[in-house]
Amino acid sequence: MKKTVLTIISLIFATSIFAQFGGPPRLVSPEIDGNNVTIRIRAPKAIKVELNGAFLPVQEVETPMGRMSRPMPVEMKEGDDGVWEYTAKDVVPDFYTYTISVDGVSMLDPNNLKVLRNGQNMSNYLIVPGEKSELYLEAEDQKGTLLKVWYPSPAFGANRRMYVYTPYGYGETNKKYPVLYLQHGGGGDEDAWSSLGRARQIMDNLIAQGKAEPMIVVMPNASPNQLASPDVLEPIPGPSLFGQDMESDEFHAGGAYTKSLVEDIIPYVESHFDVIAKKEGRAIAGLSMGGIYTLYTTARHPELFDYIGVLSMGFTPGRDAKAELTPIKDAGYELYWVGCGETDMAYDNAERLLKALDELNMEHTYFDKVGGHTWDTWRVCLKEMAPLLFK
Amino acid sequence: MKKTVLTIISLIFATSIFAQFGGPPRLVSPEIDGNNVTIRIRAPKAIKVELNGAFLPVQEVETPMGRMSRPMPVEMKEGDDGVWEYTAKDVVPDFYTYTISVDGVSMLDPNNLKVLRNGQNMSNYLIVPGEKSELYLEAEDQKGTLLKVWYPSPAFGANRRMYVYTPYGYGETNKKYPVLYLQHGGGGDEDAWSSLGRARQIMDNLIAQGKAEPMIVVMPNASPNQLASPDVLEPIPGPSLFGQDMESDEFHAGGAYTKSLVEDIIPYVESHFDVIAKKEGRAIAGLSMGGIYTLYTTARHPELFDYIGVLSMGFTPGRDAKAELTPIKDAGYELYWVGCGETDMAYDNAERLLKALDELNMEHTYFDKVGGHTWDTWRVCLKEMAPLLFK
Repeated sequence: MKKTVLTIISLIFATSIFAQFGGPPRLVSPEIDGNNVTIRIRAPKAIKVELNGAFLPVQEVETPMGRMSRPMPVEMKEGDDGVWEYTAKDVVPDFYTYTISVDGVSMLDPNNLKVLRNGQNMSNYLIVPGEKSELYLEAEDQKGTLLKVWYPSPAFGANRRMYVYTPYGYGETNKKYPVLYLQHGGGGDEDAWSSLGRARQIMDNLIAQGKAEPMIVVMPNASPNQLASPDVLEPIPGPSLFGQDMESDEFHAGGAYTKSLVEDIIPYVESHFDVIAKKEGRAIAGLSMGGIYTLYTTARHPELFDYIGVLSMGFTPGRDAKAELTPIKDAGYELYWVGCGETDMAYDNAERLLKALDELNMEHTYFDKVGGHTWDTWRVCLKEMAPLLFK
Repeated sequence: MKKTVLTIISLIFATSIFAQFGGPPRLVSPEIDGNNVTIRIRAPKAIKVELNGAFLPVQEVETPMGRMSRPMPVEMKEGDDGVWEYTAKDVVPDFYTYTISVDGVSMLDPNNLKVLRNGQNMSNYLIVPGEKSELYLEAEDQKGTLLKVWYPSPAFGANRRMYVYTPYGYGETNKKYPVLYLQHGGGGDEDAWSSLGRARQIMDNLIAQGKAEPMIVVMPNASPNQLASPDVLEPIPGPSLFGQDMESDEFHAGGAYTKSLVEDIIPYVESHFDVIAKKEGRAIAGLSMGGIYTLYTTARHPELFDYIGVLSMGFTPGRDAKAELTPIKDAGYELYWVGCGETDMAYDNAERLLKALDELNMEHTYFDKVGGHTWDTWRVCLKEMAPLLFK
């Protein structure tokens, strides 16, 4: 019997036996106690350990782009056994990323398995439960499927990767679902809306609560120099968006991405999933660069989408906003939703969009109860916009 | 124009502007130059930086389980600008995990986005290209879809998560696919075969090269105290496998997992995917604890599977191996595949399995060109076994 128990111990911990038998016990980090968040790390030889977290107190700082408010790093305190600790008190319920800096080396919290990637940078995340964050937590019971799909893209001349969310119960009946095509921003990729944006959890919760129509959400990769996120495939040679002339007609036609969306992605989705393949069953939305793609894809293909969402974006000064919007007005639409806060660096652009919508008497919904050009804004936008789609 | 360029720079790097404008340039790490692997990390204040990688030279060491050969950590050397570096020469082409220890704090390589989780531990990984590793790299062209599915499990009384791989081209015709049900080991979860096991890449490559039949691969979570991997949901209260009596009949009936596989998972897969819902279209395989589930699920449900794969497992001394295998012999099968190396701690168990198969004159394939009880062994096993399925 003793031998059997040893065998099974061995089998289970074979790959991490040294950590299990040799090392000190795992720390609880993060520890979330009501609104207090404690981060811990074992670093007995360190001189200075700092915590860099979105949940820390905000200060005004000078940046290359002017004065900005941002959470400032704090020093952690060393306690027994070389364990450093910091408790942030009265943290507002929300979704937060953080990293730890040990003697100047930025690293992840080794005791927190909740990890995400923002472009080229990794961080941990945590959720302080409460009203604002409740849709970011896993839904109690019914959760949808997330697919990582490689689809042929003749427009790019290669197979590319996108994420597709199908709601719980999809495929159990003959029901056809509407589809939201949801674009990331510059520097992001097909993973961003699911990881940073909590799109699956938000949709699971909204659908489970009866607040949003069950829908499919398609999250493509909109970066011209990527076939998939950079953790999976190295970027391909050729220009990224960076440095392109935002005033050019080519840029505003959306280039290869809009072509790919219309010629590759939508036909793929409509031939592989049970969807309502009509204007009334299609929504498009995007943030920042994805907002640009949304603006110009809908202007050039006003026959495709009844629901339009522009997040943290609008028209640059050089564009004729009314000329861009008129085809959409003429074709008709069900919802034109704009989400942008006054502290968002894209606010001037959003104002130009809102002004043109007003001047054309185009009905629209403007949501301004959000902050800057950050994922906090975009998660809130998805929560607000999704319930209005397909209704 | 200048303003436009600044705007777009801002939009793209909004979330990481401080890292981009303030910090030093990113390092190339890992750098893989032929068979030489260089790891770099910037840590100007560190006293001692060590590299812990599966590609480092192996030494014999004393462990709580006796003398074992394992790669030993090496010291990295500090060069200019506080950048520490180590080059491992003549590394055998393969898939390797690694971490870096900065003054005793184990951390990920901040310049490598390739990250995986093994149970409770995170590490980076890299692939040195060559004959052994070529199936671990992304397939050139056609890649299958990976689905993260939440399915209802009445046997567990909750929704649980599994991964499902569908090959490239799935869903484009009326073709029905065979299914491999692939189980992880103790301490693992539904993510393990895809991340540590490179299952998608291996299957993509084998199928693209015409070496394996296009098949669906279902990778459930077989841990009784998890509804999903621990990065997504905290383990639920109740016993994990650890500490159960491996000689008990209850254990050998597979407990809730075998019940769930037969009553929940197979019916879900067969009603949601285009599959050959017959014995000839079903394979089951598993490693270590998943090998135990494979042994006892097939013994108790010999009518279900024509293809059986037992990796790094076999019968413990207390079991009547022939009694367990006889129902499978009587029901008939196409393939009984056993993969285990002589240095594997489960080798004695595998020997008992092989001996009983011999004594019963049951045709079987034994693959022994593998090492210990590690993911290296299981990746090789999948490469060897998959081409024999459904043929």
